[in-house]
Formats: sequence, structure tokens, C-alpha cells
Amino acid sequence: MSYAILAASLRSAMQRNDQEAIERLIAEMQPADLAEFVQHEHTDTVLSLLQHLPLDQRAVAFGYLSVALQEEIAATLTDSKLAELLQHMNADERADLFKLLDDDRQQALLRTLAKEEREDLRRLASYEEGTAGAVMTSDYMAVPVGIPVAEALNQVRTKGPDAETIYQIYCVDEDERLIGTISLRELILAAPDALVRDLITEEIVWANVETPQEEVAKLIARYDLLALPVINGGERLVGIVTYDDAMDVAEEEATEDMHKGMSIGKLGGSLRTASLFELYRKRVVWLVLLVFANIFSGAGIAYFEETIEAYIALVFFLPLLVDSGGNAGSQAATLMVRGMATGDVRTRDWAKLLGREVAVAIGLGLTMALAVSVVGIFRAGTEIAMVVAMSMVLIVIMGSLIGMLLPFLLQRLRFDPATASAPLVTSIADGVGVLIYFAIATAVLGLPTI
Amino acid sequence: MSYAILAASLRSAMQRNDQEAIERLIAEMQPADLAEFVQHEHTDTVLSLLQHLPLDQRAVAFGYLSVALQEEIAATLTDSKLAELLQHMNADERADLFKLLDDDRQQALLRTLAKEEREDLRRLASYEEGTAGAVMTSDYMAVPVGIPVAEALNQVRTKGPDAETIYQIYCVDEDERLIGTISLRELILAAPDALVRDLITEEIVWANVETPQEEVAKLIARYDLLALPVINGGERLVGIVTYDDAMDVAEEEATEDMHKGMSIGKLGGSLRTASLFELYRKRVVWLVLLVFANIFSGAGIAYFEETIEAYIALVFFLPLLVDSGGNAGSQAATLMVRGMATGDVRTRDWAKLLGREVAVAIGLGLTMALAVSVVGIFRAGTEIAMVVAMSMVLIVIMGSLIGMLLPFLLQRLRFDPATASAPLVTSIADGVGVLIYFAIATAVLGLPTI
Repeated sequence: MSYAILAASLRSAMQRNDQEAIERLIAEMQPADLAEFVQHEHTDTVLSLLQHLPLDQRAVAFGYLSVALQEEIAATLTDSKLAELLQHMNADERADLFKLLDDDRQQALLRTLAKEEREDLRRLASYEEGTAGAVMTSDYMAVPVGIPVAEALNQVRTKGPDAETIYQIYCVDEDERLIGTISLRELILAAPDALVRDLITEEIVWANVETPQEEVAKLIARYDLLALPVINGGERLVGIVTYDDAMDVAEEEATEDMHKGMSIGKLGGSLRTASLFELYRKRVVWLVLLVFANIFSGAGIAYFEETIEAYIALVFFLPLLVDSGGNAGSQAATLMVRGMATGDVRTRDWAKLLGREVAVAIGLGLTMALAVSVVGIFRAGTEIAMVVAMSMVLIVIMGSLIGMLLPFLLQRLRFDPATASAPLVTSIADGVGVLIYFAIATAVLGLPTI
Repeated sequence: MSYAILAASLRSAMQRNDQEAIERLIAEMQPADLAEFVQHEHTDTVLSLLQHLPLDQRAVAFGYLSVALQEEIAATLTDSKLAELLQHMNADERADLFKLLDDDRQQALLRTLAKEEREDLRRLASYEEGTAGAVMTSDYMAVPVGIPVAEALNQVRTKGPDAETIYQIYCVDEDERLIGTISLRELILAAPDALVRDLITEEIVWANVETPQEEVAKLIARYDLLALPVINGGERLVGIVTYDDAMDVAEEEATEDMHKGMSIGKLGGSLRTASLFELYRKRVVWLVLLVFANIFSGAGIAYFEETIEAYIALVFFLPLLVDSGGNAGSQAATLMVRGMATGDVRTRDWAKLLGREVAVAIGLGLTMALAVSVVGIFRAGTEIAMVVAMSMVLIVIMGSLIGMLLPFLLQRLRFDPATASAPLVTSIADGVGVLIYFAIATAVLGLPTI
């Protein structure tokens, strides 16, 4: 049954209070679907629905809930109930939730855990948000490099059920240093008495606990990995990031980049549930800054007041010229920002790309000048049409270059290139565009500027 | 060694023509890295470098090359050399390359393949670009549902080496219909004499051969799958899409959405290698269309010519107001488009989100009106400042609503919501904004409109 049908049946069973049907439907649902279903329910309802699942599956479904809802539910649970749930969650999700609890609660929970788990949780919770350390899990499968295949497979069978993946097995020396890796597939196909040491791949891709999470996601995608091992300063293996977490990171990063491209701050969660004030706050800052940035365009126009008074028709083309420079510039900026994010464009490419952008921008500018000439001659006569066409070429070239170079400049200054947003490029291009337009008009139409 | 060091060493070894060093370095490189290294080399060089790898690894590295380069190299190979390479490639990559060859070449290659492989290749190559059928591979691991665990494991060992993943095993009935799935982990941990039938999960997530590829990527991400089974009309299992292919699709889709958000057409490959004319063509269409769309703003301004002549200072604020409506609108459009792409926002949510957007837009409009008043009073006096502030509130609200509703409207009309791009929203908001601005000015400042 599809999610839509299951969800509708479950809702109707809840209305009838048909416990048996509820139980049956929940057992049929994927944990991710159940989590979505309960996301907007009251915490009591969420708890009573989750109660129908066995503890391990309950923990999985709980891990799919938004962090805000997890926190809310955790607040209603007793210490022992919460500890029970935490113990069955994945190590990385457990640490994410743990970080949100207050000090007293954290202490109470730590007391319920075994020493090893306690230290693991403390360590995972200590890494800075957005690093490999913060997204990795400590539930990986590692074997000593010196044992035979049969013994390694034995360890996989006994320790496997706790690991997040057993398909990639990491091989360590006696100091827990990462030496190599072997896939379960290779292990199964190997002779039982061969030594693991002789079978492992030593050319491995790894990350450090401080590697940024977007870098981790990029490595996993580039090398088609199931999981990426994470080591600490002493080269000790301390965790892995699995491909499914990397997919979440990549999606998050793409969303963030797209929002930055429109000068929208980072939204914590869903658009449907974010508070109105949060939505307001994430959008207002840049919009207001851009109001002040636009003072320059205004000042430019004031300087050419007499030209404008003499040729009011120039005003007809102002929004068009201003938009065109901004549009061409935003296109160029978007191409660069996304190219940088996916690794297609690197900083050292800027000079080569600059030449290409100039060529493309000249082509775009000439085409758009031709288009605007048609409108211009019809609406305002040959002379003004000529001014508009000349301005269009220059404004499109200038806008494109600003849009193309700004991301590189920001990167160089160690800002995130994705903040080279369309509104920012538009505002800069506007000010310059206005100056170009009226300067050309004054020169061609022959009026004093003072 | 990192990629940068390996690449530099390899380049220097190539200059010295030190075959031994070249061989050693290539053996150390990841196939993805080697593919990147040779991407811009002459085809002869690519071939001679790939020659250092054993055939199976050569096929893997070849699969990482851009499709354009693959096509170029394929053209220089003899039929038998190409057939040898094709046989060692993944079924999905093989089909992608096969589609690009001309008819004669295809026939020649098909003759070299065994009957089963021939039919498989023909079928994979026949699915429409962008569907599950076109991205899936037929190298999956399937077992009959009625056999015991030991026998299933045996089949995995013998047929496994050809499968793209053996970690998720699909269970089929005698008509190849998909009945359920079991992970290798569960199979290994199960009793050898248990029946596969009793262990499988029957609640599975699957796609049809015609399911769009972005839908497939979303399902894999949502349910954290290693692979998604694909069935044909008769419910027969015909392929799987693996998580690494889904990651590529998701990245491609995010890039495409971002480009659409700036009215840039779909680029085939890298920004660094795309031809200048292609870059020009992908950007020019919308830019020129927007020139014509802007005729409306121009016409609006012409209608209010006398008001403008009487109050030239109104022109100072024209770029600012025009930009603000466009910026607020583009923000709203970006939030909606991305929300729809990630599944956070669904069509039926539009009414609820409309209410929220109105509330947020009123807040944004008032704040920006306040900011512009400061500039306005200083530059043009109280009366004009008031006109500008009033216009700002209305223009921001209007822009936000256009930006928010356009993606829903496009979705409803079965267009891709991502085409609700910033330039389009800006152009529409401009025309309306100009009208609002000068209408308010004429009303407040009390001038005839004709």
C-alpha cells in the first residue's frame, strides 16, 4: 500500500479508536512514513502511536522525527524511558538529541549508561556542528588487521548487529590506527584461512573529525562510497559517515546554497512549521541592507536630473536596463556558485572563466541591444533607441562580470561564495548601470550634466 | 597521498616518460581521480594511461569519464576492443554509451555479445532519458523466494561478483515477480536451513520503469535505501537503482533547479568545457523574453509621464522600489520551489502557506518602508517619502505573493515549478510595481494622469 492510503487508513482507524487496525497499519508503515504522519500530531498522540512499535523500531522512527519534535517528546519522558529510547537509537542521532537536553537531564542520562557508551556519547556530542565529527556515527565495524578471514567474519556476525553498516569493514592496528578497508563482499568471497592483512585496500579515502560536512558529502559522492571513515588527530579511527547521512547533508547544503542565492538566512526546519518571526528574520536583513545599497542608484539618478527632465522618455527604459544587468549578473553568479559547490569550478580557474564570460556577455549584450532597439525606435525615436542599445551592451557585460567575479572574490576573502546572491549582484549592477545609462545619454544627446 | 600530489607526480612522470612510475601512480589512484586527471587530455594520452590498468578497473575508470569523452574514445577503438570494454562496464553505464553510437556500430557490437547480454543492453538503452529505466542497472542480485538460506548464500557467492550490489537481495517468484527483499546482513545472521520466504520483508519501496529519476532519488533518500528495485508493467523485477546513482541524480537535479531559478537552460556538462555558444544559448532566451516583458513597465511609466515631469525626484526611487518587489518575490519563489523539490511543501499546502506569506510580507514591507523613509525624507521631502513608503509596503506584499503563488500555479498547469525563476518574478513584479508607485504618487500629490 502506498503512503497516502496507509496514512488515510490510519487516520480513520484513530478516529474509530480501533486499536487492532492501528497496530496492524503501523506495522506495515515504513519508519520514515510513520515519522512524517505523526510530525504534526500532539506529543501524547505521537507517543501512543510509537508505543505500538517494538523498542528498536520505535527508536528508528523516533530518529526520523524533526529534532524540535524529538526535543518536545524527550521533555515529557521520564529519565529511564528516555534512556531506554536513547540506547536503541543510532549513535549519531542519539548525540544530536543529547546536545539539546539541559545539563541536569544530560547528567541523569549519562549515569544510566555503561562507561563505554557514556564516553562515546560525550565525545560525539562534543564536535562542532557542521563537521565530520558531528555527523559521524561510532557504530562502525572494525577488525584487527592481523586475523584470518574466518575470524573476521565471526566478529562481523557477533558485533555486526550493532553496527550501522557491516558492508564496509575497517581494519585497524593495535593502536586503533586505520590501516585499510575491506568490503563484506570481498571477505565472503575470500578463502577462510587467508589473512585480512593480505586482502585489504590500503588506498583509502578518509576525513578528519574537523573536515566540513559538505566536504564529506562531496567525497562520498565522488568516490561512490558506502561510508567514509573519520580519524582524529592521532590517526585513530573514531567513526564513519554513511552514504545516507551524506545524502541528507548534500540536500541540506543545496537548499542552503539556493536560499543564500536569494539572501535568505539558514532555516532550521520545515517551511510549513517555521515560526512567522523566523521567516521574517531570515529574509528581512538583506532586504533592508539592499534598500540602503540602492541609495547609490538614487544618487546617480539625481546627478543626471537635467538630462532626465529634458528627455523623460529615458525613464521608460530605466527598469528594463536595471533589470537586464541584474539578470545577466545573477545568471553568471549562479553558474559560478553552483559550479564551485559541486567541485566543477575551482578558484584557480577564474582567469580562464573570465575570458569565457566576457565572450558570452558580449554576445548576450548585443542580442539584447538588438531586441531593445526594436522596442526603443517604436516608442522613443532613433536617438534614444541608440542610447538605450549602447547602454544595454555595456550594462549586460558589466553585470555579467560582477556576477562572475563576486563569488571568486568572496571565496578569496574566505566568505561563502553562495552569499554572492542575486539581490546583491542586482543592487551593485543597478548602481553602476544607472551611471552608464545616463552618462551615455548625456554624452550622445549633448546636455550639460550640471 | 592526496589527489593533488598524485596528479602532480603523474604529470611529472609523464613528462619524463617514466613508464614504471606512471604504472605505480596509476595503480595508487582512485578510478574517479584518474578519470578527472585524463578528462582534458588528448584521446591518445587517455587511452595509453588507461592501458596501465587491468581490464576490469579500466572499465570502471572509463565509466567515470564524461559521456562526451567516452564517445570520442569509443570512436577511435576497433569493434572488438570496444566490445571488450563494454562487457566489463556496469550495465547502466554501458547502455548510456551504447545509445550514443551510430546504428552500424551498435549492430556490430550487439553481434559480439551473448544473447542474454544483447537483450539486456537493448532493453536498458530503450528507456526514455530521465526515467528509472534509463538510470537503473540490470546487475542486481535476485534469488527465488522458495529456497533455504544456505542455498541463497551460495547463489550470492557464485552470481555476486557480477552484481552491482549484493548487500540487498531481491526475492522473486517463478515469474520473476518481485515478492520481497532481504539484506545480506539478515541472510548471514539467519539459520542456514531457514527458508528465505520466511525471512523476507514484504513491505518494500519500489519504482516503475517510467518513474521520473528525481522521484527515484527522493525515494532512496527518504527511506535510506541502498538500492531501489524497479519493476515493469507486469510487476516483473527488471533492475535496481543504487544509492550512488541516486546521489548523482540528486546533485544534477539541484543544479538544474538552481539554474532554472535564474532562467538558465540545462547545461550538458561542465562549465569549464561547455562551448561558448552553448553557454550563450542557455542564457539568452529568457533574457530577451524579459526585455519584451519589460515593455509593460515602460508602458506604465509612459502613462504617468506628467506626474514624473512634475516630480523628477520620484525617479530617484524607481530602481529601489522595482528591485525591492523583485527581491522579496524571488525570496518567496525560491523558498517554495526548493520546498517543493525536497518534498517539504506539497500543492495542497498552498492556502495555509499563502496566509503565512501575507503575514511575513506585511512585516517585511513595513520594515523596508521604514528604512526607505529615512532615505526619502532626507533626499526628497516628507510628501514624496510618504508616497515611497506607502508604495514600498504594497510592492513588497504584491511581489511576495506573486513569487509565492507562481510556483503553485506552474505546478497546477503541469509546468516545472522551478521555472518560476527570479528574473520572471522580477519582471512581473516590476510592471505591477511601477503602476502601484505612480498611481499612489498621482493620487497623493494630486496631478492629472492624462
